[in-house]
Amino acid sequence: MKTRPRVALVMGSDSDYNTLVGCIKRLEYFNIDASVRVISAHRTPAEAAEFASNAKKSGIECIIAAAGKAAHLGGVIAAHTTLPVIGIPIKSSALDGLDSLLSTVQMPSGIPVATVAIDGAENAAILAAQILALRYDYIEKKLDEFKEDMRVKVMDKDKALGEKIEKEREND
Amino acid sequence: MKTRPRVALVMGSDSDYNTLVGCIKRLEYFNIDASVRVISAHRTPAEAAEFASNAKKSGIECIIAAAGKAAHLGGVIAAHTTLPVIGIPIKSSALDGLDSLLSTVQMPSGIPVATVAIDGAENAAILAAQILALRYDYIEKKLDEFKEDMRVKVMDKDKALGEKIEKEREND
Amino acid sequence: MKTRPRVALVMGSDSDYNTLVGCIKRLEYFNIDASVRVISAHRTPAEAAEFASNAKKSGIECIIAAAGKAAHLGGVIAAHTTLPVIGIPIKSSALDGLDSLLSTVQMPSGIPVATVAIDGAENAAILAAQILALRYDYIEKKLDEFKEDMRVKVMDKDKALGEKIEKEREND
Amino acid sequence: MKTRPRVALVMGSDSDYNTLVGCIKRLEYFNIDASVRVISAHRTPAEAAEFASNAKKSGIECIIAAAGKAAHLGGVIAAHTTLPVIGIPIKSSALDGLDSLLSTVQMPSGIPVATVAIDGAENAAILAAQILALRYDYIEKKLDEFKEDMRVKVMDKDKALGEKIEKEREND
Amino acid sequence: MKTRPRVALVMGSDSDYNTLVGCIKRLEYFNIDASVRVISAHRTPAEAAEFASNAKKSGIECIIAAAGKAAHLGGVIAAHTTLPVIGIPIKSSALDGLDSLLSTVQMPSGIPVATVAIDGAENAAILAAQILALRYDYIEKKLDEFKEDMRVKVMDKDKALGEKIEKEREND
Amino acid sequence: MKTRPRVALVMGSDSDYNTLVGCIKRLEYFNIDASVRVISAHRTPAEAAEFASNAKKSGIECIIAAAGKAAHLGGVIAAHTTLPVIGIPIKSSALDGLDSLLSTVQMPSGIPVATVAIDGAENAAILAAQILALRYDYIEKKLDEFKEDMRVKVMDKDKALGEKIEKEREND
Amino acid sequence: MKTRPRVALVMGSDSDYNTLVGCIKRLEYFNIDASVRVISAHRTPAEAAEFASNAKKSGIECIIAAAGKAAHLGGVIAAHTTLPVIGIPIKSSALDGLDSLLSTVQMPSGIPVATVAIDGAENAAILAAQILALRYDYIEKKLDEFKEDMRVKVMDKDKALGEKIEKEREND
Amino acid sequence: MKTRPRVALVMGSDSDYNTLVGCIKRLEYFNIDASVRVISAHRTPAEAAEFASNAKKSGIECIIAAAGKAAHLGGVIAAHTTLPVIGIPIKSSALDGLDSLLSTVQMPSGIPVATVAIDGAENAAILAAQILALRYDYIEKKLDEFKEDMRVKVMDKDKALGEKIEKEREND
Repeated sequence: MKTRPRVALVMGSDSDYNTLVGCIKRLEYFNIDASVRVISAHRTPAEAAEFASNAKKSGIECIIAAAGKAAHLGGVIAAHTTLPVIGIPIKSSALDGLDSLLSTVQMPSGIPVATVAIDGAENAAILAAQILALRYDYIEKKLDEFKEDMRVKVMDKDKALGEKIEKEREND
Repeated sequence: MKTRPRVALVMGSDSDYNTLVGCIKRLEYFNIDASVRVISAHRTPAEAAEFASNAKKSGIECIIAAAGKAAHLGGVIAAHTTLPVIGIPIKSSALDGLDSLLSTVQMPSGIPVATVAIDGAENAAILAAQILALRYDYIEKKLDEFKEDMRVKVMDKDKALGEKIEKEREND
Repeated sequence: MKTRPRVALVMGSDSDYNTLVGCIKRLEYFNIDASVRVISAHRTPAEAAEFASNAKKSGIECIIAAAGKAAHLGGVIAAHTTLPVIGIPIKSSALDGLDSLLSTVQMPSGIPVATVAIDGAENAAILAAQILALRYDYIEKKLDEFKEDMRVKVMDKDKALGEKIEKEREND
Repeated sequence: MKTRPRVALVMGSDSDYNTLVGCIKRLEYFNIDASVRVISAHRTPAEAAEFASNAKKSGIECIIAAAGKAAHLGGVIAAHTTLPVIGIPIKSSALDGLDSLLSTVQMPSGIPVATVAIDGAENAAILAAQILALRYDYIEKKLDEFKEDMRVKVMDKDKALGEKIEKEREND
Repeated sequence: MKTRPRVALVMGSDSDYNTLVGCIKRLEYFNIDASVRVISAHRTPAEAAEFASNAKKSGIECIIAAAGKAAHLGGVIAAHTTLPVIGIPIKSSALDGLDSLLSTVQMPSGIPVATVAIDGAENAAILAAQILALRYDYIEKKLDEFKEDMRVKVMDKDKALGEKIEKEREND
Repeated sequence: MKTRPRVALVMGSDSDYNTLVGCIKRLEYFNIDASVRVISAHRTPAEAAEFASNAKKSGIECIIAAAGKAAHLGGVIAAHTTLPVIGIPIKSSALDGLDSLLSTVQMPSGIPVATVAIDGAENAAILAAQILALRYDYIEKKLDEFKEDMRVKVMDKDKALGEKIEKEREND
Repeated sequence: MKTRPRVALVMGSDSDYNTLVGCIKRLEYFNIDASVRVISAHRTPAEAAEFASNAKKSGIECIIAAAGKAAHLGGVIAAHTTLPVIGIPIKSSALDGLDSLLSTVQMPSGIPVATVAIDGAENAAILAAQILALRYDYIEKKLDEFKEDMRVKVMDKDKALGEKIEKEREND
Repeated sequence: MKTRPRVALVMGSDSDYNTLVGCIKRLEYFNIDASVRVISAHRTPAEAAEFASNAKKSGIECIIAAAGKAAHLGGVIAAHTTLPVIGIPIKSSALDGLDSLLSTVQMPSGIPVATVAIDGAENAAILAAQILALRYDYIEKKLDEFKEDMRVKVMDKDKALGEKIEKEREND
């Protein structure tokens, strides 16, 4: 029996793991099962093709691909599946992630990669949740809850900052 | 009775319509109902908020937002809904669309916009189809068909170019 | 009784507070009352709209909006008010603030945001003062004083550097 | 007797005139008197300094400066006056206006230039109107009217596009 | 019997053919046999993998890959072969080819793509010739000849321009 | 008796040495003899010309040139030889290596420089090996081995990360 | 007898001639003798080195070098002479001249190239005149005259535009 | 009695002093008298104009201007003098100095600023020396000496690196 929605998070290098922790945690928050994989578009191309070709059959419903520099991972995976593929451009050592972003987002007609911000790990998870909510009603509710939480947190910070400034002014 | 999956395509200005025709046609190909709207994040902010807030209730399952320059439309819509929002950065008159791209893709944590390439109208439609395929089985089949069509077309062009070059060489 | 001119300084995240201290201090220098708020265009869109819509009625005369990455805050506020809106692009973690700058300054026709330099917190305050000087004569005088102070400080530094170099040459 | 609010529109070269016509027309719409001048920061520096130094005395209440490439005009004028200075970066023949934008907006602390989009002529006029509205009540009303007009126009276009698409579908 | 050195020129889309004619002609000049193919990294990924995996066995000694936007073709081919792969970034409709360049050149460690200039079709052919010259002595001689030809042509143009200017001066 | 294939690694400044160690080690791995030189296109132009002109005669079969900022070294060497020249753009202190990249890769027609990623020292060595494999069969085998090693390492990391995450989940 | 100051204008390709006509004319205006040459840093490196090495001896007092893309010409010439070298980055077919600019201006310590704007042909001539004015008094006078002419022209245009606008207003 | 050639080094802010020490030292090496000044184009515009207008009369023969961000200093000075003006773009806190570079180099026709690399302090001094060598023969000799010194230093480093690598290989 399938108990949880399934997303795969694929990274081009395990050195990107720390950047991606926020993605894993946020998927967990939405009670989404995350298969975390290290697969390189360039070093393990056969594995990447095989993984992507079999993803749907193996029950994966959405794929998140994270890579840096000439970041082909999202595109390579998207070439081999019709599942929605979310791309996270990883900030590279040079050029501040512009290379990763353009290599991920500027896909030619026919093969989209749903790109989020540079190092936008958490947003990739949220986007995956928004997509899976089409199939899983509980995620829709969880998304509303999450949105409301964000709202409240900003309002709390707004209040806290106001009080902090108030105090500083009184102390002047 | 709901007969077709529903996507909304929202553009910031009707001058973007020609760039977006490919999106409308591709949605039609997938037999997806497209509500095409002109709504500006800046000139009709209340309408944008209202549209986005009510989209889910009114049966829309995915939103595509296309805008140029300081392209806030995708972000503004995403702020008011938990539906997946796909952003198309429109190539602007200056800076070659870099402003539109960064304004669309670099969303802060919590509010993703699934960004496709600059002027990537057709890819937005395909991505919407990939997302809706989670709910509509027929789209999944149509996507496989589309992918195979693309493959065959490239192979036909490969063959045609080979023959053209062959002929030119014979004529030399 | 209204005693001081009123400006609102709105930031998209309280993590930008340290960058904005120079703005608050400079407004204080001009004896301008600053309402400091944390409001997010994306996480609290209703609050942002409400704030901007009511700003004029509540006595605010100019709004400064500071945000990073896909920085929509200035634009969203400007969409809901006819008060002058000053935008401070915050230097984001990637792309060195270019994304924040373009998202703030490249506004479409109809909805200007008066943009200052990346992290240009103090200049936003001075610009607000220049704008309010149209209504408050004392600020005009204060601005002349401030300009003269700047001039004198540069000349003092010019003199100090000259003396420092002179001494070093003597010691050689 | 002073009958109208006064803005100066200064351009670095008369070849920018066509780009700036939208600014002049929009100022006229707001019934703002526009002194249009050709003054170059580099070819007529003394005239620029003199103009800026005397602007306030001569009744000018806000200055719009438009220039391209290494666009110093806004900064040079701002150096000589405490009036609010609005900068329009003109799209240059090379680099797509990025040089003009950075030269205008990246002003050092102390001397802000309120920068609008590249070639953002109309927005400069609107921003000037927003600033002058602090002193002239009629402009405030005119701005509300203008905002409502924009809103209606977008809604009309939304409706028109909807009808156009409807018709095309019927004809298919 | 193998009579000529063999290079494959692979393009991601047959719309790039006109840009690549200079490459084909220059290979012909060096008497190198060019297999010209249309293979897409994204639309025909299996064909791309198969082509690259079999290239060496089928007698190809160097591969030139030309693609635009998120240009993965060079990288995907390099992932499947140890033959030297030369990448030509094609100038794309937006961003002036910067996306194509970064997607081609910024390859991660382990999988180089020898990148030439944006639209640098002829240089790709020359580079291929320089590489093949390690195996084919006649190409080395041809390269020396080509270099000398270039030198002479520049000197002829130098002379011609000098004479042209001389004449114009006499006519003044 | 010539015992090993020969590559020259030329750097524009000895301060680039640490960036280039990975290149030297990888050449050693392929059992390629590396002449490491410090030659500046601008400070020792005659030496650069002489080195490049004589390289082929002295038994060098491929040249790697590494330089930063206005990185002319690759181009200057390529101007004086028909050997394949590989360029490594060194990340410069300003502009994140974009200047080095464009100065190296954007060579005019006739004189290609095979450019690898910014600071792509190891890839330059691998590319050199791929080129030399046309003449030395053992390198071809070594390249296959290297490719397989890379593949295995990624798969090991994939496995290790999977286990690590598994453990963390058990411990939660 | 030497009758006129001597400048050399060297272009990397005769296709740049039209861009450079303004330079030749402006040098003529200053009564400076211009040797116009086509010399390529990459196609005729020996000629470039010889030219630069002998320039001073042959009476040339300042060199202007114009080139596009990976524009090494200025740097290569500066490497072989201690004469001041002025670089004109030519707008290239891709990247809008950014590559030419960075390749010309970002010279390493020790070998400056005095860079003017992209396609800044006339300014190169004026800069050469300013430099030569240190040796030729008549140029100093001519420069003052030129500056005054520019000033008057701007003022005339200022007047003309004012009158034109005045007329249009009367006709409304 | 005038004993030494005179250059003025003007910086927009004394915080740039450390970046400019290399300029002062190199001028000293060429026995050129350097007046070091802090003058801001924006905070002390009258002083900047006065300084530049009087520079020639007061015996200054070349001016070096260093500034960051919207770096107008070089242009403002060049507007008021016909002396050659050398611009040093200072690397700014955001955008990596690209803003400073474009604001300095992209000067409009008529007013050149001889721009060196970002933070290219030493090169500004060398360029000044090359310019002054037209008037002072001793500098010409000193420049030849300096060039030869650079050459020898590179060759020494070449030798030292070769020996270091040799040793390491022996120790392996």
